[in-house]
Amino acid sequence: MKVSSQTIKSVKVEYYQIPLAEVLSDAKHGDHTHFEIIALHIMTHDGFEGMGYTYTGGKGGRAIYSLLNDEIKPGLINQDSTSIMAIWDKLQWDLHYVGRGGLLSFAISAVDIALWDIKCKRLNAPLWQVAGGSSDNTKCYAGGIDLNFSEQKLLDNIGGYLNRGFNAVKIKVGKPDFKEDIERVAAVRNLIGNDKILMVDANYSMSVEQAIRFAKSIEKYDITWFEEPTIPDDYKGFARIAQATSIPLAMGENLHTLHEFGYAIDQAKLGFLQPDASNIGGITGWLHVASMAYTHNLPICSHGMHELHVSLLASQPHAGFLEVHSFPIDEYTTRPLKLENGKACAPDIIGTGVEFDPQLVKPHLVKHS
Amino acid sequence: MKVSSQTIKSVKVEYYQIPLAEVLSDAKHGDHTHFEIIALHIMTHDGFEGMGYTYTGGKGGRAIYSLLNDEIKPGLINQDSTSIMAIWDKLQWDLHYVGRGGLLSFAISAVDIALWDIKCKRLNAPLWQVAGGSSDNTKCYAGGIDLNFSEQKLLDNIGGYLNRGFNAVKIKVGKPDFKEDIERVAAVRNLIGNDKILMVDANYSMSVEQAIRFAKSIEKYDITWFEEPTIPDDYKGFARIAQATSIPLAMGENLHTLHEFGYAIDQAKLGFLQPDASNIGGITGWLHVASMAYTHNLPICSHGMHELHVSLLASQPHAGFLEVHSFPIDEYTTRPLKLENGKACAPDIIGTGVEFDPQLVKPHLVKHS
Repeated sequence: MKVSSQTIKSVKVEYYQIPLAEVLSDAKHGDHTHFEIIALHIMTHDGFEGMGYTYTGGKGGRAIYSLLNDEIKPGLINQDSTSIMAIWDKLQWDLHYVGRGGLLSFAISAVDIALWDIKCKRLNAPLWQVAGGSSDNTKCYAGGIDLNFSEQKLLDNIGGYLNRGFNAVKIKVGKPDFKEDIERVAAVRNLIGNDKILMVDANYSMSVEQAIRFAKSIEKYDITWFEEPTIPDDYKGFARIAQATSIPLAMGENLHTLHEFGYAIDQAKLGFLQPDASNIGGITGWLHVASMAYTHNLPICSHGMHELHVSLLASQPHAGFLEVHSFPIDEYTTRPLKLENGKACAPDIIGTGVEFDPQLVKPHLVKHS
Repeated sequence: MKVSSQTIKSVKVEYYQIPLAEVLSDAKHGDHTHFEIIALHIMTHDGFEGMGYTYTGGKGGRAIYSLLNDEIKPGLINQDSTSIMAIWDKLQWDLHYVGRGGLLSFAISAVDIALWDIKCKRLNAPLWQVAGGSSDNTKCYAGGIDLNFSEQKLLDNIGGYLNRGFNAVKIKVGKPDFKEDIERVAAVRNLIGNDKILMVDANYSMSVEQAIRFAKSIEKYDITWFEEPTIPDDYKGFARIAQATSIPLAMGENLHTLHEFGYAIDQAKLGFLQPDASNIGGITGWLHVASMAYTHNLPICSHGMHELHVSLLASQPHAGFLEVHSFPIDEYTTRPLKLENGKACAPDIIGTGVEFDPQLVKPHLVKHS
């Protein structure tokens, strides 16, 4: 039974390009000079407004804007804003021929997050409570995008994370000479001491054999996970690496359908799952993966957009580590991320807890509808 | 060593919406009222021009236009037009974060086909020769999009295919009541007689159990393949269906990376592979899959854009059947598809053999750069 007042009245789409303070690099995506945000506002007939969004590392945002504005927006009008799973499923099939992951997953994510924002507002509750309510805080780590940093700059950057209160850090690896990677890992472990947590991330730049050789070389530095050692498509290659080293493997940012997470869980022998709500189909997609993780006895983690994921991680009983990403999206919101005793605190704001500060984002608006 | 005269001088992108003569429907994509063509023209400093293109069933074309125009075009300028595989690989990694299949594969396809057009022109040869040269013709079938047709209209449509000279036809299945599908298959077999070839296509609308029940019910009608019985992601579900019936399975139009074809070959127990050069990464992507098919002792087939695939199928020693698709893209080219003795003839035109007729497509041009 549809309640007409809950139906969607109007939809707005916004496309932002936000410059980074400095160029950030990893082994496979190259240099990042800015990130893109594509935001979607959904208004209902009974006066609710929800904001959802997705982001990229600088490319493809205008195609996502087109999917949202040209293909998806017209079909949302007069849909019941409370039927989130039905809308999520319908969008997957309506655009299936050009979809199944890829850019479509980014677009659906923005829609889904906006609908969850409205859902939380209807319930008059913050997201961490609506999504599961296990806690209002979560373990977290600072994720550096620092492959282009000199060793001294790398250490200064890590020192900055410790000063901000982080107890866990991740660095990029994948230098042309893997011995340099080993030196950098050793130097960071030496800087942070034995009690802090350290992860590494190769952004799928290594062959399986290179990854095994590298993993064995850094086992002695107590590495919590080795993220994306090789291409995400090579699930069985991941398994070969996992079997050859004691360091657990992690991935998720490049798995954009639930099926891809299913293959990874079945075949890749992962230690940590890292779905990103901005490209796995929003909160609905992220919670599906969290459910798969729970069922398979794996901790659920995240990639990117920490201002949103903080509430999702906090909500789950099997939460691993929230990534606090080097794209500072939270600095453009009304409530930047807060740390207490090394843990990230979920906002007690009604809704998803993420609202862009109009004064901060307005200069970066490229187009809107 | 780069030869500067072979480098790319300029790139143009065009977006067309072309109406269909009547509404065509299948079980999962719903009603098609038009199709989209996104065309790319590449000009080199030494005076060659290549045209590549991709198409959709009506949605997502403007996002592909954005990928080509906003993201890909600037990086193509001054690239060596003869380094096709290098450009193909670079595009995959440059846009990997928003890629890996999905819409990006459509965009890369258009670029790749334009570069192959130039390659053939440099060699002063038609595509069927450059791509392998096994033959200049291929077995083919008429692929109806006819699920919404009454049984009489379905039979009239099939009769039209026979009159045009086809010896093989495919119909859509996936009616709410599968008994109606069985009746339609029986009626078509009765119409075409025992010597003609008949395939069915469910557009992934059935569960594994429904597909098994249906396949067993139509085995007696001598069905050459059962296409996309269930969702393309369920490789092991395909295998269960394949093991339960004597009808070979086919898929490909929804596999948009080489890895996805790898999983399908390994796990889905397919009888036929049907890559579509418009969404598997162009001719380079299609030939990769053809190579995998050759290695795994499988016939290579195609989906859609028969005006191009006719040359690719003809070129391969292990060709199966060319789909002559219900989107009549060829009718907007200077050389519509030709049949002789039930076989489709590859054009002897220098290049890919596909050129849009400016007078025919111009009325449907929506935007261009």
